Amino acid sequence: MAPRWFEGFAVGETFESRGVTVTEGGMVGFSLLYDPQPIHVDRETSRRGLHGDLIASGLQTLALANRLWVDLDAMGANNIGGLGLEEVRWLRPVRAGDTLCVVVEVLDARASRSKPDRGIVTFGFTTRNQDAEIVLTYRCVNVVRRCPTDAG
Amino acid sequence: MAPRWFEGFAVGETFESRGVTVTEGGMVGFSLLYDPQPIHVDRETSRRGLHGDLIASGLQTLALANRLWVDLDAMGANNIGGLGLEEVRWLRPVRAGDTLCVVVEVLDARASRSKPDRGIVTFGFTTRNQDAEIVLTYRCVNVVRRCPTDAG
Repeated sequence: MAPRWFEGFAVGETFESRGVTVTEGGMVGFSLLYDPQPIHVDRETSRRGLHGDLIASGLQTLALANRLWVDLDAMGANNIGGLGLEEVRWLRPVRAGDTLCVVVEVLDARASRSKPDRGIVTFGFTTRNQDAEIVLTYRCVNVVRRCPTDAG
Repeated sequence: MAPRWFEGFAVGETFESRGVTVTEGGMVGFSLLYDPQPIHVDRETSRRGLHGDLIASGLQTLALANRLWVDLDAMGANNIGGLGLEEVRWLRPVRAGDTLCVVVEVLDARASRSKPDRGIVTFGFTTRNQDAEIVLTYRCVNVVRRCPTDAG
């Protein structure tokens, strides 16, 4: 995929990522640094708990969804930056051995009123596991460069 | 801090974390895995860009804020899980050498209507750097166990 300018994102368009398999080592490694709760790092305690096993930190699932999206290189260097996330929802636990993939839909695209060189694009993320169950949804708002010849 | 049941969280109460210093190695390491955009992993390209240097992935800032909160152990094993995040806002870039700390405020706490053993607590996170500039804000909604003797 060639990186796109703001003008290249059409509302309703979708992008589909490759998959990534979540491993126990990856889960524990992430969570030791960023979310060291027993349910994410202690297999023995987790097996006696609500989910019957370790589950991934929701922040790792979010980070993996982002990685799958970044690898599509839809914006490339035209991504000026992320403003924020809306309605992050962890809908099902992610376990070691699950394989995740992401569908990203362009929900909104509007030119900046104050800065003619950029626009604001809202992307809707849906992350599913190998059984097509939705595990995570969120929206991400990005500032994206306009094509110089269109920006006036 | 002793972990609290749902009943222990009073709206308006705040918790303040210790600090954590963001390093270039930590930034590049996180972003190579989860957000491999040049602005997060390529110092030379970043120096010619908008921020004049590498900046941290916003997802890493979010993950570090979570770590600081988890280390306070406010909920401990009474945290049944996070439902989601609201209004994640990256307000300023985070650079190598910045030291972050988090203030977490209890914004809302309500007993579950359907499950008498738990309640829903909304926490508001404000992450600041060493100059007291706010770099990240968000709300996190958690399910928290009620004290067995109060749960009826």
